[in-house]
Amino acid sequence: MTTRTEHDLLGDKDVPADAYWGVHTARALENFPITGTAVSTYPHLVNALAAVKEAAARANAELGLLPPRIADAIATVCQEIRGGALHDQFIVDVIQGGAGTSTNMNANEVIANRALELLGHAKGDYARVHPNEHVNLSQSTNDAYPTAVNVATITAVHQLSAAMRVLERAFAAKAVEFRDVLKMGRTQLQDAVPMTLGQEFGSYAVMLGEDRQRLDEAVALLHEINLGATAIGTGLNTPPGYAAAACRHLVAITGLPLTTAADLVEATQDCGAFVHLSGVLKRIAVKLSKTCNDLRLLSSGPRAGLNEINLPPVQAGSSIMPGKINPVIPEVVNQVAFEVIGNDVAITMAAEAGQLQLNAFEPIILHSLSESITHLRAACLVLAERCVAGISANPDVTRGYVENSIGLVTALNPAIGYAAATEIAKEALATGRGVAELVLERDLVPAEKLAALLRPENLANPTATP
Amino acid sequence: MTTRTEHDLLGDKDVPADAYWGVHTARALENFPITGTAVSTYPHLVNALAAVKEAAARANAELGLLPPRIADAIATVCQEIRGGALHDQFIVDVIQGGAGTSTNMNANEVIANRALELLGHAKGDYARVHPNEHVNLSQSTNDAYPTAVNVATITAVHQLSAAMRVLERAFAAKAVEFRDVLKMGRTQLQDAVPMTLGQEFGSYAVMLGEDRQRLDEAVALLHEINLGATAIGTGLNTPPGYAAAACRHLVAITGLPLTTAADLVEATQDCGAFVHLSGVLKRIAVKLSKTCNDLRLLSSGPRAGLNEINLPPVQAGSSIMPGKINPVIPEVVNQVAFEVIGNDVAITMAAEAGQLQLNAFEPIILHSLSESITHLRAACLVLAERCVAGISANPDVTRGYVENSIGLVTALNPAIGYAAATEIAKEALATGRGVAELVLERDLVPAEKLAALLRPENLANPTATP
Amino acid sequence: MTTRTEHDLLGDKDVPADAYWGVHTARALENFPITGTAVSTYPHLVNALAAVKEAAARANAELGLLPPRIADAIATVCQEIRGGALHDQFIVDVIQGGAGTSTNMNANEVIANRALELLGHAKGDYARVHPNEHVNLSQSTNDAYPTAVNVATITAVHQLSAAMRVLERAFAAKAVEFRDVLKMGRTQLQDAVPMTLGQEFGSYAVMLGEDRQRLDEAVALLHEINLGATAIGTGLNTPPGYAAAACRHLVAITGLPLTTAADLVEATQDCGAFVHLSGVLKRIAVKLSKTCNDLRLLSSGPRAGLNEINLPPVQAGSSIMPGKINPVIPEVVNQVAFEVIGNDVAITMAAEAGQLQLNAFEPIILHSLSESITHLRAACLVLAERCVAGISANPDVTRGYVENSIGLVTALNPAIGYAAATEIAKEALATGRGVAELVLERDLVPAEKLAALLRPENLANPTATP
Amino acid sequence: MTTRTEHDLLGDKDVPADAYWGVHTARALENFPITGTAVSTYPHLVNALAAVKEAAARANAELGLLPPRIADAIATVCQEIRGGALHDQFIVDVIQGGAGTSTNMNANEVIANRALELLGHAKGDYARVHPNEHVNLSQSTNDAYPTAVNVATITAVHQLSAAMRVLERAFAAKAVEFRDVLKMGRTQLQDAVPMTLGQEFGSYAVMLGEDRQRLDEAVALLHEINLGATAIGTGLNTPPGYAAAACRHLVAITGLPLTTAADLVEATQDCGAFVHLSGVLKRIAVKLSKTCNDLRLLSSGPRAGLNEINLPPVQAGSSIMPGKINPVIPEVVNQVAFEVIGNDVAITMAAEAGQLQLNAFEPIILHSLSESITHLRAACLVLAERCVAGISANPDVTRGYVENSIGLVTALNPAIGYAAATEIAKEALATGRGVAELVLERDLVPAEKLAALLRPENLANPTATP
Repeated sequence: MTTRTEHDLLGDKDVPADAYWGVHTARALENFPITGTAVSTYPHLVNALAAVKEAAARANAELGLLPPRIADAIATVCQEIRGGALHDQFIVDVIQGGAGTSTNMNANEVIANRALELLGHAKGDYARVHPNEHVNLSQSTNDAYPTAVNVATITAVHQLSAAMRVLERAFAAKAVEFRDVLKMGRTQLQDAVPMTLGQEFGSYAVMLGEDRQRLDEAVALLHEINLGATAIGTGLNTPPGYAAAACRHLVAITGLPLTTAADLVEATQDCGAFVHLSGVLKRIAVKLSKTCNDLRLLSSGPRAGLNEINLPPVQAGSSIMPGKINPVIPEVVNQVAFEVIGNDVAITMAAEAGQLQLNAFEPIILHSLSESITHLRAACLVLAERCVAGISANPDVTRGYVENSIGLVTALNPAIGYAAATEIAKEALATGRGVAELVLERDLVPAEKLAALLRPENLANPTATP
Repeated sequence: MTTRTEHDLLGDKDVPADAYWGVHTARALENFPITGTAVSTYPHLVNALAAVKEAAARANAELGLLPPRIADAIATVCQEIRGGALHDQFIVDVIQGGAGTSTNMNANEVIANRALELLGHAKGDYARVHPNEHVNLSQSTNDAYPTAVNVATITAVHQLSAAMRVLERAFAAKAVEFRDVLKMGRTQLQDAVPMTLGQEFGSYAVMLGEDRQRLDEAVALLHEINLGATAIGTGLNTPPGYAAAACRHLVAITGLPLTTAADLVEATQDCGAFVHLSGVLKRIAVKLSKTCNDLRLLSSGPRAGLNEINLPPVQAGSSIMPGKINPVIPEVVNQVAFEVIGNDVAITMAAEAGQLQLNAFEPIILHSLSESITHLRAACLVLAERCVAGISANPDVTRGYVENSIGLVTALNPAIGYAAATEIAKEALATGRGVAELVLERDLVPAEKLAALLRPENLANPTATP
Repeated sequence: MTTRTEHDLLGDKDVPADAYWGVHTARALENFPITGTAVSTYPHLVNALAAVKEAAARANAELGLLPPRIADAIATVCQEIRGGALHDQFIVDVIQGGAGTSTNMNANEVIANRALELLGHAKGDYARVHPNEHVNLSQSTNDAYPTAVNVATITAVHQLSAAMRVLERAFAAKAVEFRDVLKMGRTQLQDAVPMTLGQEFGSYAVMLGEDRQRLDEAVALLHEINLGATAIGTGLNTPPGYAAAACRHLVAITGLPLTTAADLVEATQDCGAFVHLSGVLKRIAVKLSKTCNDLRLLSSGPRAGLNEINLPPVQAGSSIMPGKINPVIPEVVNQVAFEVIGNDVAITMAAEAGQLQLNAFEPIILHSLSESITHLRAACLVLAERCVAGISANPDVTRGYVENSIGLVTALNPAIGYAAATEIAKEALATGRGVAELVLERDLVPAEKLAALLRPENLANPTATP
Repeated sequence: MTTRTEHDLLGDKDVPADAYWGVHTARALENFPITGTAVSTYPHLVNALAAVKEAAARANAELGLLPPRIADAIATVCQEIRGGALHDQFIVDVIQGGAGTSTNMNANEVIANRALELLGHAKGDYARVHPNEHVNLSQSTNDAYPTAVNVATITAVHQLSAAMRVLERAFAAKAVEFRDVLKMGRTQLQDAVPMTLGQEFGSYAVMLGEDRQRLDEAVALLHEINLGATAIGTGLNTPPGYAAAACRHLVAITGLPLTTAADLVEATQDCGAFVHLSGVLKRIAVKLSKTCNDLRLLSSGPRAGLNEINLPPVQAGSSIMPGKINPVIPEVVNQVAFEVIGNDVAITMAAEAGQLQLNAFEPIILHSLSESITHLRAACLVLAERCVAGISANPDVTRGYVENSIGLVTALNPAIGYAAATEIAKEALATGRGVAELVLERDLVPAEKLAALLRPENLANPTATP
């Protein structure tokens, strides 16, 4: 392998001649052989880094710090990257020490070397285009990296939100389809009072809608960036007007309504928005998991379970039990939910561990957030398309439960009182007889009124009843 | 002990003759000997239950379901309770099975028996005022209890928010006091670039301000209640107009802008708002813990630590080391933060475990949320009053660090470039010599310009520099 | 209120004249108004502190550092405390800063003042018996407190282990009772293959037995103590032979096989054994919660659920639904499990936050561990006595599921192959017909052989089949 | 792309003609597009699956169920896989629904098709060698998969344990190297009493040694396997003697002392050993994180920090601050620790979510455990080799802290009492004067005795003092 020699604080080091990355990336490769997963796994982050670097170059050029030719070359490279190029050059490990310095330097080096190439120079000829002095000009890892993480996360969350919308619609469609399927509601897994399967599926849609609102609110917090803060928020080594200019360019490049934080010292050390977002992702996970638990429960059977609904078969369920079909899609969603909840703890610990002017642990925060967001998105889509859309009801089963139910007695409270109703329920349970039968036998309510009181359709929508 | 005999589904049971609670409470006492802590530990909840019961009674009276005389008696009792009376009668364990049924029945029984007393009847004479048929009329535990939990939590959060405001002001006052105390900023615990101690304390104030905003947003979600949902959200056994009337009365009683949820089936099973609020409490805990870690670090010493600030001594620190003073107030705040973060996991699991139309685990959610909110409130007040307010700076120490610092070299980047500056830094580190001295020796920058570049005051506020 | 004046590092302070506690306790009361719960809530800890103080006094006397008259007085007081006296004098908050110093000083003061009383002196006459110089002699909070925490925790765990044994036996008794109750096993909530209800309950007993073994192993780690380490493990201010003597006396007093840690510096900063124990408590919580989930699922119904078993009714389940009986005991156990899992996170964070020679956060570790242990113990006893012992089976229901099951087809794999069996299962599912019927119709297996293959009793215990 | 057509419960499906995997794998690919990470990421698991399949084939052949020719072919394929072949054919997603069925079927299909190839048949010719009827014979996913997970985990843990040993030795070597470096011990970040840097590093070695013991104990629990349980533990469709034979073969193949669980019904549903192991991994993470926090604190500076030790520079620390060197290796270890702690929560939730006879969520348990184990291993090696081995001390700095310390006054307790020592400490703190100077001035102790009492070397090893 042909190599070129680069130099840093520690001395000389060879890197492959054709690599766009350089000595800092090479050191990081040696230092962080942790997961074997490169940051290129997060295209959102790579693209966002390119957006930040272009915005900085344009602001620097505008303020006279960077020769236009170099700024243009940097901008061109950044656009190439956002177009999908060079992602394979972002090779540092997703879990790394140093508050993102290695990711930032990886970006600086790739951009510098590709810019050199565009300008007709050799890779490594940093006197002409330097990773630190040109690409990273007026920046520190401590503002460039978190800004890129914000931009990347916003983009990823938008995709999650869209996937949640798909799932919400799938549930809403089923709510309409099942609006006349009468069934027993259950509280604490015990038979309660009647409702419709449409109401049940409708509540899943409503939950998702609320969760999407929370997600949108949480991601709004990420639009406040600290670009221009440099090392600790004092903006050392930035020219007057830089922060505003860089933000303006980044808004233009990304199309996102980003703003510069009012207090850059605070913004540089604060991981609050990430913790907050992760908390909302956890909330979504909790609800999705609960919903999938319900789907698995309602489809339990086929003969020895509740058997109220059928999930569409998507694969053979068992290597030993022929014909067994398992709720594998809800199960995989449950597992993503557990992962997201675990990631929230990791993010919480990483955020709490920040010290003084910086949080050194943003890489694991970015890593965990990215996993949570992209896996949740995949889970929502799979759940919508490979499960919810194909769910069918067993209306005979669900109606049978209602007609056979003791819970109907609740509707008699106003007519016969809680105490008398309790006695009826006890006897129904002990004897296996029906509620109506027992009420009539004791002459507690006239037959006609009883029939009206116990009409399940009314019970499911009592407020609609005249 | 004299007793009276009451009756329930399981048969007869004696309760103390003078107890306002009855048979359902007695069963719960036997069933849940878990923590030894009674729900009366949460006065907010007891008061909120009273508010809900009064609102329901007034709505029932208004709609003609409850005789005015009984409704008035119930309302009078509820006002007595909110005035502080009868709290010692709320004796069921804070951790209980049954989705809050035992707490709700405890309230129903206490209110019924006190109402009987007010009306001149004997305790237990439920034919006249019945815990279920009168006090609980048009309600289920599944709407009355969560509504009370919402109201209680809103009240408690208001107090937390006020305490955070006190702490925020304490930090802001110190930010002003320390605005001229020059010090080294640190990233990754390594010397970075200069700043002021005022900037550092100012960022703690800003963080708290942001957290309060998030808290206010989170608690706003709790204003949506499900009163009128009864068992599963279908509103079974409520008369038309009941939900609206009950909400209107509850608004009047509590002064809170409560509204009825649009989808009561969803609202009855959904713990999303609690999970969300807990996530925000966790965020606050993370920031408070980070801040206290910083305070402990900055005050480390007195001779073998950073020694930048002094925390006010509040107690002798050691049973063996004379004169030792420990940062006990930040330490207790850290511990509250750990508790809150742990509680968030408990709440998450409880929320995820909800099934179908109800979450049976609301008691642990209420318990954990109450602990988190009230302990955080106490922690904020103690931190503000017994620590932050008395913090003093050691400006000679902090300035000494700046003058001796290698990090000053960062300011020379624009003048001499990153590579040359790196060489200066290496030599300063190796030899123990000063940055300015080395720069002058090599003739890299004229002395006058160097002095201007390295003026620490400029470095701390570079954007203010002309 | 009459008072006496005491003195500490901060100056003079009045304490109630009749209080056994003194100025250090008074300061702590002011500093830590966090939970309102006093350390006297943990009698195990108060007793353990008394045991440690007696052991230290005896060792000090033996080595000639403490006059026998004072040592005897201290020992007498400690025995009184372990007999139940003076617990109301342990008033500092369970969550406190200072690594337990306030709890230790509370103990030192109470013991000193009671010893003074026994010796005929006035409270506060510390020149004669001094909290630090006599009661705390040769100790630091940093060894006396963790040693007491170890001893307290061992005692509490023994009681938990005994309660688990009670629960294990309750399940084992049901395993025998239900050994002939044939039922469908379920995997992923889908009908699988036959088993007996006895096998199902037997597995709960086996799990608990394994968990008890893990608990016993974990608590064994706590028998290594650091008494004699004083401030940081170097044993400063202890006479030669002290650590060994103190341990020997503590063994005699407690009856526990305690040993002195080999490396006291390590032992003084290490919270590993607490983290480990908490991990095992979490494991127990996970299993208990899973078991209770199963009990709630198997008893779901009574008409619209699995209805395989009946939990004994222990209270009316609903304030609105007459006759409803809820699985409140399993539900309360679930909630304790969630609390324990949350506490594990709090303990984890507190342990991780230790710095250099000490972990300042042991109070929250002790608090969380104590909660987890005592609540789990209560949960096990309640579950055993108020639920498991009274569970009955519905053998007709469970056998009906088996006879109606498609899962029986699994047993035909060896005879007809997985592919043919899959076709049978598909048709049974689609048509609602029985497996045997379809097999015979297609002439795949002779009727007699089929009957033998499908005998459910054989299927549940196939290895017992000849 | 040429394809072949396969068939399952859902109908026909084309797979690439040259794929060793078949229709079940193809379905899983469509169903679980979650992480993009294939199970081949875990070579331990792929190898362990091959070991289980070979053991089963040999047992089946031995018991006359499988023709020797087919059994031999299967065994040959399994050996090829363990030699590294065919791993790229294990393509199902690491997070998947179905309790591992897709991973198991992926293995069954790959092995069947490669066996067909070896026997001279075409891929997909399952009438000759069938994934279910031959490769999976006498097995279910529910025993084959967990057994493979156990074997894989044991292997991975052995490598982690070895890495911990490397790290332990690195710390132990430094303990020797630094045995004479006197320094101040610190408790609660406040100066305490003297010790040596060797003692400090020694405690890190001791902690790791203890953690390794716990890890070895935890992994021992995984040696109990449930092979032979088939679907739910009853062993349906296994011939007499099969479980014992399969275990015997697996022992021979893996060299591990595996045993068959006594109660296979319990073993098939129980995730206790995984929860336990994860708890121990969390314990290790907590300690490693604390240790890295210490290393970062002790090396803080170089001018405005404690500066007691120097971590070896491994990369430039900052993209803006020249010469800055950050503790990136401890930082990456901290982040792995946070990940492991988060994974423990995910594993806990997954384990708790098991229902009745099976835990459907083992894939996320396997995934999280694998991440935790392999990342911890990498972290230990990196920390040992790229950080600890190169740490140097600054003995002048550390001795300076001791000589300047107020904490020395503790050693005077026995001579002058806690109260007088407190006054000395207060004055030293207020005036900046030295302890010895003040003691002599007040004539509290003769100069010679004072010098002996305060000799730091004695203070660090007081028990070694005559």
